[in-house]
Amino acid sequence: MSLDPVLSRIDSDLDGALARLTEFLRIQSISTDPAYKEETEKAADWLVADLQSMGIDASKRPTPGHPMVVGHVPGDGPHILFYGHYDVQPVDPLNLWKTEPFDPQIEETEAGKVIRGRGASDDKGQLMTFVEACRAWTAENGSLPCRITFFFEGEEESGSPSLVPFLKEHAEELKADIALICDTSMVSPGVPSIASQLRGMLKDEFTVHGPRIDLHSGHYGGPGLNPLREIAKIVDSFYDHETGAVAVEGFYEGVHEVPDELLRQWEGCGFDEKTYLNSVGYSQPHGEKKYSTLVQQWARPTLEVNGLWGGYQGAGSKTVIPAEAHCKITCRLVGDMDPDALRDKIRKHVEDRLSPDAKVTWNQDLEGSPASVMNIARPEFEKARQALSDEWEREAVFTGMGGSIPIAGFFKEILGLDAMLIGFANDDDAIHSPNEKYDLKSFHKGMRSWARVLDALSKD
Amino acid sequence: MSLDPVLSRIDSDLDGALARLTEFLRIQSISTDPAYKEETEKAADWLVADLQSMGIDASKRPTPGHPMVVGHVPGDGPHILFYGHYDVQPVDPLNLWKTEPFDPQIEETEAGKVIRGRGASDDKGQLMTFVEACRAWTAENGSLPCRITFFFEGEEESGSPSLVPFLKEHAEELKADIALICDTSMVSPGVPSIASQLRGMLKDEFTVHGPRIDLHSGHYGGPGLNPLREIAKIVDSFYDHETGAVAVEGFYEGVHEVPDELLRQWEGCGFDEKTYLNSVGYSQPHGEKKYSTLVQQWARPTLEVNGLWGGYQGAGSKTVIPAEAHCKITCRLVGDMDPDALRDKIRKHVEDRLSPDAKVTWNQDLEGSPASVMNIARPEFEKARQALSDEWEREAVFTGMGGSIPIAGFFKEILGLDAMLIGFANDDDAIHSPNEKYDLKSFHKGMRSWARVLDALSKD
Repeated sequence: MSLDPVLSRIDSDLDGALARLTEFLRIQSISTDPAYKEETEKAADWLVADLQSMGIDASKRPTPGHPMVVGHVPGDGPHILFYGHYDVQPVDPLNLWKTEPFDPQIEETEAGKVIRGRGASDDKGQLMTFVEACRAWTAENGSLPCRITFFFEGEEESGSPSLVPFLKEHAEELKADIALICDTSMVSPGVPSIASQLRGMLKDEFTVHGPRIDLHSGHYGGPGLNPLREIAKIVDSFYDHETGAVAVEGFYEGVHEVPDELLRQWEGCGFDEKTYLNSVGYSQPHGEKKYSTLVQQWARPTLEVNGLWGGYQGAGSKTVIPAEAHCKITCRLVGDMDPDALRDKIRKHVEDRLSPDAKVTWNQDLEGSPASVMNIARPEFEKARQALSDEWEREAVFTGMGGSIPIAGFFKEILGLDAMLIGFANDDDAIHSPNEKYDLKSFHKGMRSWARVLDALSKD
Repeated sequence: MSLDPVLSRIDSDLDGALARLTEFLRIQSISTDPAYKEETEKAADWLVADLQSMGIDASKRPTPGHPMVVGHVPGDGPHILFYGHYDVQPVDPLNLWKTEPFDPQIEETEAGKVIRGRGASDDKGQLMTFVEACRAWTAENGSLPCRITFFFEGEEESGSPSLVPFLKEHAEELKADIALICDTSMVSPGVPSIASQLRGMLKDEFTVHGPRIDLHSGHYGGPGLNPLREIAKIVDSFYDHETGAVAVEGFYEGVHEVPDELLRQWEGCGFDEKTYLNSVGYSQPHGEKKYSTLVQQWARPTLEVNGLWGGYQGAGSKTVIPAEAHCKITCRLVGDMDPDALRDKIRKHVEDRLSPDAKVTWNQDLEGSPASVMNIARPEFEKARQALSDEWEREAVFTGMGGSIPIAGFFKEILGLDAMLIGFANDDDAIHSPNEKYDLKSFHKGMRSWARVLDALSKD
């Protein structure tokens, strides 16, 4: 099988691909809103029909929510599981849209042509880059170079309630050698990126108890222990102000330094620190001082306070010493950090610092998940990186991600699969916002990228 | 004029005094509830009639809310302004009352006889101790030994909205040599007390601003400045954990050590530290380590956090780095602490500790008032103390109070009057709660105390 004719066909059929994407984007598959249930179903049907038109054994699979779409292409090469989602975010506030969200338009912008509409980037445009690459391969060569399982979800924008049960129930059917996920951005425009490490998460919540009841600060102010002071002391003690590090004993166990080679890739990946910080009102990074902003975000763990409260929050003043104060935290985990062991360390840190007469209770319902660190030593990773570099005429980079992408964790946990997260979105695509768009360059070179990746993966 | 016949008349007319108090307590003068407007007015009328029955020139004075009652008794002695309030707290939860709240009953208890009912202690029973003393004086001697202005309010339990305007408008009419206020407790049962220093108050509120908008802790956790951490750091920095003192520079300017003689009085005043602490769940005091619990409460300033909040407070977890965090504080002031100067010091303390990229804004609507420290060197104070000691056969003490009693501040500020706060309530009177009561011993010896105080004040 030959790659070049496939790339040529992608180039010559770009208008056809855009027409198909436009048709797909017209379907109002807002999964979170029950009013759009039929439209969401229609998007699943559209995908099934499109896959079937390429000769793929595709079907809609019912769930208690919106259906999954699964398609199988047999083959001799490596077995790939490709994931995307056909549902989209709601469109409000509608008045901020320059065009109709479900009437996609091609627009000329300063940065080149874009297709504008809800789902253009997240995730219909992105998933179609892969589908179109497969279409071109099949049309040109009569078959695909790998064995492929297509797996599309319709609930990604509404919390994926059916995902884990479906994966567990159909684990045998969905198992493959490696997963490809097309739902991420490039680290900067034109820099092809494979996200190969995602931070994990530990959630916890505690309440500091002081007096038996709320007290009057005239009567007890002075001798009274105030849980708000106490919780401020504890939160502050989590951090070493000198270094910016977390001061919980043993917090960094399981954290590894970023290998020099990866660090060099990151340094040259075009990440614009200034824009990243300034856009939200920061003039400088505020994490661990000895690490760069990007390393702080991708490869260092955090202990973050997401909620802190107690006492009176209304207008004016109330002279209360409250009985309780509350704190919600999440930690972002990297490397081999063990969420359960870390939870114990944090709880001990808090308990060791309580004043006499203060007590602490913990929410027992919050869970943790370790970091997802893909094994980039697997040959598929380097093959894909080379394929992307060829297409974009620029070294592709293995990036980290500060957040978690749950699907990658579920693939690892339930199906035992490493995932390559390859996406062509740009940070200015306005996903989840009015005026979502997808660059035609992303769409076009995305299709060509996947053709190259399939070609590379199929070869020894 | 002779005291002993007055005391004898008080003793012999105790049943009459109790009958009058019972009649007064039957009036449902709940000032905060519009449904009881007529009843509240009726209580004012009852007081006017009772004063007039003693030959006092008394009248009801309209306000935008409930009326004031003002009565004048001319005379040659020192001019006294006596204050009390005829309104009472609501009675709910009604099901917790053992008797009808407005059907007062005399009850035998382990600690002696009590009269039980709403307002028995706060403040109808207390104010009647003074009125009955005056009745006995007048009956026995034909006139009172001092010039007296009676001043009764009907909105004390509903925020006193008409008080300051009325005082300002009638300042000339209400001016006197000294004020007597009967709305406080004895420091412990049987220990006559004159509250001679009340802490002042400074209120402030600030918001710490971090990023321009709420951020995702995956995307910005690490490099992102979190206002919740920042506000915890600032709150914690208010305190010196070693000493328990407030660590704001200059905070203690204007604070004076308690004079040795007063300290000796306090040490012997019967304050039960263990009960005071244990009743709310404390095993030890938590303020400045070098001061006793009582001194911490009465004579030392505080900086207390009454509200602290930011980020997510709902169920479960939200991975947010919030844009803002909020803190409400109140300081209790003593001695000559200047609220305005202190506000500046606290604000500087906060601003000096902000991280780069953090900003702070302040609520500009919150006010402060200095401590009320009565000039106990005035001869009236020692005269009253001696009179109380004679009646209770135990040294009366000048006490402090941890809270503020606004009326004392207004008398000082608007009328230029020092006030002697003398009350005979006990801490177990359940004021503001179901089953309010007043000890008959308090009622009886309270009347006798006032007779002695009037006698003492009238003499050079």
